[in-house]
Order: sequence, then C-alpha cells, then structure tokens
Amino acid sequence: MVMTTPDDAAVIELAGLAAYVRLRLFGLVGGHVIDAPDLDAAHRMMTVASRVGEQQKELLAIGAAHGLEPVEFMGPFVGILDSFESRTASSTWWEGLLKGIVGHGVSSDLCRLLARGLPDDDAAAILAALTYDADAPERVTSVVREATDADPRLGARLALWGRRVVGESLSLCQELLVTRPGLGELARQAASSSDASVDAVAWVMSELTAEHSRRMDRMGLAA
Amino acid sequence: MVMTTPDDAAVIELAGLAAYVRLRLFGLVGGHVIDAPDLDAAHRMMTVASRVGEQQKELLAIGAAHGLEPVEFMGPFVGILDSFESRTASSTWWEGLLKGIVGHGVSSDLCRLLARGLPDDDAAAILAALTYDADAPERVTSVVREATDADPRLGARLALWGRRVVGESLSLCQELLVTRPGLGELARQAASSSDASVDAVAWVMSELTAEHSRRMDRMGLAA
Repeated sequence: MVMTTPDDAAVIELAGLAAYVRLRLFGLVGGHVIDAPDLDAAHRMMTVASRVGEQQKELLAIGAAHGLEPVEFMGPFVGILDSFESRTASSTWWEGLLKGIVGHGVSSDLCRLLARGLPDDDAAAILAALTYDADAPERVTSVVREATDADPRLGARLALWGRRVVGESLSLCQELLVTRPGLGELARQAASSSDASVDAVAWVMSELTAEHSRRMDRMGLAA
Repeated sequence: MVMTTPDDAAVIELAGLAAYVRLRLFGLVGGHVIDAPDLDAAHRMMTVASRVGEQQKELLAIGAAHGLEPVEFMGPFVGILDSFESRTASSTWWEGLLKGIVGHGVSSDLCRLLARGLPDDDAAAILAALTYDADAPERVTSVVREATDADPRLGARLALWGRRVVGESLSLCQELLVTRPGLGELARQAASSSDASVDAVAWVMSELTAEHSRRMDRMGLAA
C-alpha cells in the first residue's frame, strides 16, 4: 500500500497539473503534424509532441509512486484549459505553432517556479520531468526565427498573436494560483525562498513575463 | 561515411514507408486527444500516439544507419495518404478512433509481411520497430469493445465504417505494390518464402484481409 502524507499533496497537485497540461499540449502540437506546411515542419512537430509525451510519462510516474492512476491524478484539472483554448483558437498553422511554444513555455516555467516551494526531493522529481534535451526547443523556435526573418509581415503578425496568447496564459496562471490553495501556498514558499519582497502571485507573474520575453527574443519576435 | 549497397534500397524503402505512415498516424491519433469524450479516452489516445512515436523513432534510426536524415528518408512517400485521408474523413470521434486502429493495423501488417522478403537482419530491425508491447493495442480495441457492447447501434455504424476504411486501406496498399517496384519485389520474395502459389499482390491482399477480420473480431465488430 502506498502511504500519502499531507506533505505529498503539494507535489501531487503540481505534478498532476503539469501532466494534464502536457496531455492537452500533446494533442494540440500532435494534431499540427497533419496540417504542417511541409515534411520538415511535420517532423519537427512530431519531435516536440513526442518530447511532451515523454515528459508526461515521467509526471505520471510521480502520480503512480503515490498510488494514483493517470485519470485520478489528472482529473482535478480537467477543463482548466477550455477557456484559454476557446480564447486562443488559432487560424493558421503558424499561430498554432506559436501558441504551442508560448503555452508550453509558460506552463513549464510556472511548474518550475512553483517546484521551488517543494521539499528538495519532490522539486528534483518535477524538474527532472520538465527538462528538455538542450536542442529540442531550439529546433522549434528556429523554425519560427527562419520564417519570420524571411517574412517580416509574418513576424509582425506573430508578435501580436504571441502577446494575445501570453496574456491568456498569464491570466490562467493567476486564476490557478488564486483558486487552488495548494498552488498558491507553493507560490508563497517559492517567493520567500527567492527573497521576493512582493506579493507571491505578482512575483510569479513577473518571473513568467521575463521568461516569455526571453523566449520571444530567441524567435526574433517583439514580446 | 555510410556506404549504401543496392541491397540496402529495399530495407530503406520499407522502413521509410513505415516511418512516414507513422508520422501521419501520430498526427491523426494525437489530434484526437483534444476532442476525446473524456479524460480516460484522451489518455488512451495519447498512449497510442506515443507508442506510434516510439516506433517511428526506431524506424528513423534505420534511415540514420544508412546516412539518411528523416526528411530524405520519408520524403519519397509524401502525399501517398492524401487520397486515403480525403476519402475517409471521419465525422465523429469514434470514427476517427476506428480509422486510426484500422489504418495503423493494416499498415503495420503490410510492413511486417513485406519484411519477410528482406535479408534476416533487415527484417529483424523492421519487426523490432513495429512490435507493440502486448497490452497497448488491447487497451484501444477494448475501448471500442466496451462502447459497442453498451451501444449496439454504435457497433453497427462502426462496422460499416470499418469496411469503408479497410477498403480504402487495401486499395492504397495495392497501389503502392504496383507503383513502387521495390515494394512489389519484396511482396514477391515474401510470397515465395511463404510458398504462396498465387500472384504476390493477391497473396498480400488476402493476408491483410484475414488480419483485419481478426482485429475487427477482437473489437466485437463484423468485418
């Protein structure tokens, strides 16, 4: 029998959130294999989705270690992305790609930040699951960079789109921190361990925004 | 430098075909994570797509061993599924699921059959890439079985749909064997190694049909 202590609730909640977000991202990015503009782009989409799938498997293993089946583990988060997804329905393949990059980036950053509020072992398990092999994200961001370098109007449109997606992503993060006490408590722990003197939610938002700007920079897009 | 002999052409063609079909299947099944009826179904779709992704990685490794990048390796097959896909556009999630099961099943069976025409080492590499862990396909076919047991009208509709999908799948296989001399030659080698006294293409078609019937049986659907 697997024993779950009250302390386990925090890592279970954070890993379950990350696993559910990855399930949705897998579907989002995986589906774009079909309507990719060419074979190279399709192959890159598949590579990214596969990596998201591997991350999810590691996160599900955290749930299994606490005796939770995938559906029990991810169940508390069903529906959290519905409003985000309906507000960011993409109308082109490029918009879908950028939505995947931004959404994946913000959600990974959020989980990594909140993991700082966990005991060291639990934090390490979450960070290990969310680690990318160094070149995988570069391969996707480089597709965007090449395309926008070649077509500045596409770059301008995608920069606007990126602002909309990140705005919706940050709203969702904020909502989660406010409505899920366990996640809010992790944010407070993480903020105090980082000597942040401001409100924990505001601290998380500013960290996520800074990471987003760096990501947009790498793609040659104005944040 | 990687040396490629004329004998390598056959394994490269067959593995490249299998890799490209898996790329498309990954997108097809992966996209159904998003519109799955519930979390359990979404999780199953993701598990299947992930397995398809792992198979594709192993097939790409066969290409890499012959010095071929993924795009070079799969490139000769771009477009082969377009007509199949437009003729089998699914209108419900269940149709999409069954299309994935049937399409994946027939394409895997075709590749396994043609592999019998290869030298032993090459055949072993293809078969290893196409092996499922025993319970993965069962998990998907069992979803269909449970649903059709509970709703015989769904079962009747899906049985009809399965006939349409398998018809289109077999037409595509036949077309590939006739228009791709390398694959046609593998079919002849495989048929003669199996003491088939009939035309090789007819032999492949009858083997594929028999496997399909067994698969439909497992799902409780009339083939």
